[in-house]
Amino acid sequence: MRNICMIVSYDGSAYNGFQSQPNSNTIQDKIEEALCTLTGETIKITASGRTDAGVHARGQVINFHTESRIPIDRWCMALNSRLPDDIIVTDAREVSETFHARRSAIRKTYRYSIRCGRYKDVFRRHLEYHHYGSLDVEAMRLALSYLVGEHDFTSFCSVHTTAKTNVRTIYNASISTNEQYIGNMKSTQLFIDITGNGFLYNMVRIIVGTLIEVGEGKRVPDDMRRILESRDRTQAGPTAMAHGLMLWEVLYEE
Amino acid sequence: MRNICMIVSYDGSAYNGFQSQPNSNTIQDKIEEALCTLTGETIKITASGRTDAGVHARGQVINFHTESRIPIDRWCMALNSRLPDDIIVTDAREVSETFHARRSAIRKTYRYSIRCGRYKDVFRRHLEYHHYGSLDVEAMRLALSYLVGEHDFTSFCSVHTTAKTNVRTIYNASISTNEQYIGNMKSTQLFIDITGNGFLYNMVRIIVGTLIEVGEGKRVPDDMRRILESRDRTQAGPTAMAHGLMLWEVLYEE
Repeated sequence: MRNICMIVSYDGSAYNGFQSQPNSNTIQDKIEEALCTLTGETIKITASGRTDAGVHARGQVINFHTESRIPIDRWCMALNSRLPDDIIVTDAREVSETFHARRSAIRKTYRYSIRCGRYKDVFRRHLEYHHYGSLDVEAMRLALSYLVGEHDFTSFCSVHTTAKTNVRTIYNASISTNEQYIGNMKSTQLFIDITGNGFLYNMVRIIVGTLIEVGEGKRVPDDMRRILESRDRTQAGPTAMAHGLMLWEVLYEE
Repeated sequence: MRNICMIVSYDGSAYNGFQSQPNSNTIQDKIEEALCTLTGETIKITASGRTDAGVHARGQVINFHTESRIPIDRWCMALNSRLPDDIIVTDAREVSETFHARRSAIRKTYRYSIRCGRYKDVFRRHLEYHHYGSLDVEAMRLALSYLVGEHDFTSFCSVHTTAKTNVRTIYNASISTNEQYIGNMKSTQLFIDITGNGFLYNMVRIIVGTLIEVGEGKRVPDDMRRILESRDRTQAGPTAMAHGLMLWEVLYEE
């Protein structure tokens, strides 16, 4: 059996998330259908993690086992011609038998994109959360800094979690900005990048929902530390909308 | 009667073009419906020009007459809350009675976007024409330079035109590039910007369709001059796909 690993990029707008569900339209279903058409096998893929409905991925990683003898450099093109145009495989390689897209991952980066300004960008409306007013980016940066390190992230986890432990390590959390004009009104894009060894259910979206309240001045940066320590989901802000979120990159031990 | 001028940005993907047609889903229809809901009047708008099905606009300009007394600084927000999320008004101003969005325009700029590389960018797939192989940008630039000036553009005009004359002036035509990685494959974005005093039906798309053949080496740059001189549509290349085209900007005498 060959074990094949792929990098997949998708626009999640049209899907009910990554993971297969009965009678549902998911990214996993589309990839497995394309693999079945290509190889004639019934293949079950494993991803680095699920993404929710509406969430995108620049570099989702999957792996699967196959008896197919298709040369490794043919897989991307062969699959892309069988996939809908909002899902694309950008890399395929053969990996050792023990490689597992979820269990072997050592760190993951998510990006959440916000556009602050009077007008949304119609061409990126499916990729950015539009916030009408400005946000205090320095306050948000300070708030975000309290999350770096190993912590119990219960406050930033959906109550519907099935995780055994809520302890995770955040290696890096930063916000970069970019100014643009839409019409003659200035707007500011915020890119919130968070890298960790793993993420709980809705974790990035709840962190961002809380950060937005800090940016709006409804909370002070130090609240982030207090919320983290409380280990209580009700202390944090709302879950930010799915469409601003993108699974950016997944790293593995070489 | 007030004469109001607006700048409108839209993602044309979901529409059958700008101009109203019977039983059709057009951008003009959506704007006129929103104006009717807002003012209670039946308003007919005039645009700087129509855009085809699937073509986008960053800065389309429209004007219309109204008896409404809504203050000018309220129009954008009031309309945007009544428009679908792929159409947005970014500027509104009151103009003199004689202003006409089409007849008063003195120059227009269109941008055509191409991505050369193995993989398309799924997040911009509705905005860029994807060209698998590389293109010879220098040859394309040379070919494009022959179009600058006043010429009869019959060769680059759909045979379905209703224009009285096919003479137009191109003030500027240039190609800028930007390199990006998709997965670990390099891709090059090409932005073809063409500014003129007016454009014939399908003119930019036929120019681009011909330019792509120059970029592929199927034609030499000098063919552009020969095609222009022939005044024969059959000499030019195919009409490039609509989704790569965007009406960028329309200029008026102050």
